[in-house]
Amino acid sequence: MSSNTIRAYAAKEPHSPLVPYEFDAGELTATQVEIDVEYCGLCHSDISILNNDWGVSSYPVVAGHEVIGKVSRLGSEAKGLKIGQRVGLGWNAESCGFCDPCIGGEQVLCTGEQKATIVDHAGGFANKVRAGWQWAIPLPDDIDIESAGPLLCGGVTVFTPLLLNNITALHHVGVIGIGGLGHIALKLLKAWGCEVTAFTSNLDKTEQLKGMGADHVINSKDPEALKALSGKFDLILSTVNVPLDWANILTTVAPKGAIHYVGVPLEPVSVPAFSLISGGKALTGSKTGSPIVLRQLLKFAARKNIKPQIELYPMSKINEAIEHLEAGKARYRVVLKADFE
Amino acid sequence: MSSNTIRAYAAKEPHSPLVPYEFDAGELTATQVEIDVEYCGLCHSDISILNNDWGVSSYPVVAGHEVIGKVSRLGSEAKGLKIGQRVGLGWNAESCGFCDPCIGGEQVLCTGEQKATIVDHAGGFANKVRAGWQWAIPLPDDIDIESAGPLLCGGVTVFTPLLLNNITALHHVGVIGIGGLGHIALKLLKAWGCEVTAFTSNLDKTEQLKGMGADHVINSKDPEALKALSGKFDLILSTVNVPLDWANILTTVAPKGAIHYVGVPLEPVSVPAFSLISGGKALTGSKTGSPIVLRQLLKFAARKNIKPQIELYPMSKINEAIEHLEAGKARYRVVLKADFE
Repeated sequence: MSSNTIRAYAAKEPHSPLVPYEFDAGELTATQVEIDVEYCGLCHSDISILNNDWGVSSYPVVAGHEVIGKVSRLGSEAKGLKIGQRVGLGWNAESCGFCDPCIGGEQVLCTGEQKATIVDHAGGFANKVRAGWQWAIPLPDDIDIESAGPLLCGGVTVFTPLLLNNITALHHVGVIGIGGLGHIALKLLKAWGCEVTAFTSNLDKTEQLKGMGADHVINSKDPEALKALSGKFDLILSTVNVPLDWANILTTVAPKGAIHYVGVPLEPVSVPAFSLISGGKALTGSKTGSPIVLRQLLKFAARKNIKPQIELYPMSKINEAIEHLEAGKARYRVVLKADFE
Repeated sequence: MSSNTIRAYAAKEPHSPLVPYEFDAGELTATQVEIDVEYCGLCHSDISILNNDWGVSSYPVVAGHEVIGKVSRLGSEAKGLKIGQRVGLGWNAESCGFCDPCIGGEQVLCTGEQKATIVDHAGGFANKVRAGWQWAIPLPDDIDIESAGPLLCGGVTVFTPLLLNNITALHHVGVIGIGGLGHIALKLLKAWGCEVTAFTSNLDKTEQLKGMGADHVINSKDPEALKALSGKFDLILSTVNVPLDWANILTTVAPKGAIHYVGVPLEPVSVPAFSLISGGKALTGSKTGSPIVLRQLLKFAARKNIKPQIELYPMSKINEAIEHLEAGKARYRVVLKADFE
């Protein structure tokens, strides 16, 4: 087997079970690293790409973009990393390095040649994965490697908004949707020192969510509860992909506060301009995070012992794991442990 | 005539011509100043209040909230002003001074007892007007007093967004709607050093708008023109109150840019969450400005010789002036010169 051969689990077509798949990845480029996969998180967007929900997939698809592993090969121009070093890889695998966002440290907004880890690129449901060296983020020694994978995508997706919105421990932040992303948000916000409110449609989870960092747990479908929260939140972080009454939710935002979208409801979001104007409020959004933000998050998570709550599956049982996630049963994030022989 | 008698022009009911109206304003409070009105701008929101469009008017209504005049009386606790000093008064006349926004210098967001100049308060279509001393903004000596009135409301409304969005001379700003507010925005942005694009539905105005500071003039109803501007604007300032295709306009906003609303379209504004997320874009809004912002604006306008383009009417011809504005003929702002005998 050539050193460029990668063994993976791939979808040959939409909505089909993943099957073992071996392919030749070609020569490693000068700026790439190759990572021996140890763990890889399973994210809803993996399923979207496996099923071509967004119309950008080309088959066979190897998904998986919350990778923890060790650097096994280094291109001649790959900087700052060593063979054997443990790294994480998230949604992004390549960026051009030259466009304005890249040169300004906002590689996540790269307008040049860039690649997501699982779009026209083989992801982490494999024994090896490749990426531009910038996106192979060094893992702090004292981080829990089994649960760290989900920080690389789900985690950074809810961490970036805290930086973009200048959130500090003075602020009251609401989180809508307590799943794979939202539960990490609760833990991060607790460690960030914020007052934290979890919006959930299932109050049975109240004690569990308080254990994760929520100071308050609110039924998101109770109009009276929303009314009592009028003007309370400096930030509302929405992780859901279902339509909600955003105009009503905006009434719970404090002057100068924002609703920040990281989940993608397919219907347009709609609010009265008057609400934005009279309170100086905003609707904002962001995706994942640039390498500097990933580095900051991993160090912060290690220092504060923030661990996504995961369910571990061997990667060989990936189809079971996908079924579990699709059934809405994941509590709260699924991680696959590579078990290639 | 008692020293508390004020002579004004008032609407006795919605959609009726203004008539001379004399009233007793009661004792000046300790924190108020009284201003002898010299000029007062005429703003669309005066007409909205005169006609009770927003359901908050109580008759008789004395409108007018872009006042230039001289301090004629000072309450015992009114700070920093002198009798005879020239000041400006805008949309806000009173704020509580104690709530969090007030103590933080954001009096425009006052959550305590506050008053707009023309809501349950007699405005500047009068020989005298009163206000809390904080809102009587000292006029720089070298400002043009005839045209300065509109800076106090229309001007500060388009100036505040530059501060809130951290706009500098590096940025490209689009202005939608070149009327009373928009034409001041062009002049301010030019002086701010920005690249400036005016969106107008009337390209006949092109040379005129370039004279005001627009580098580029675009037909806002031309989809091809919009397409060519994809990702160009760091900020789009919307001064219109009509519904536009905001989703399409958001495509012209650069990564991390915003559409900022100061005009109030009555229909909700609606955009895809995905556009906010993928580009880190925002919808934001604001109203008028706090005293520190008004002070900054007046100094800046004086230093840069920024003058709203006005049409001057004697205040005794206020009904003609209102008719002119309502007919959409104002170029670009109407100012009334007090001519009480």
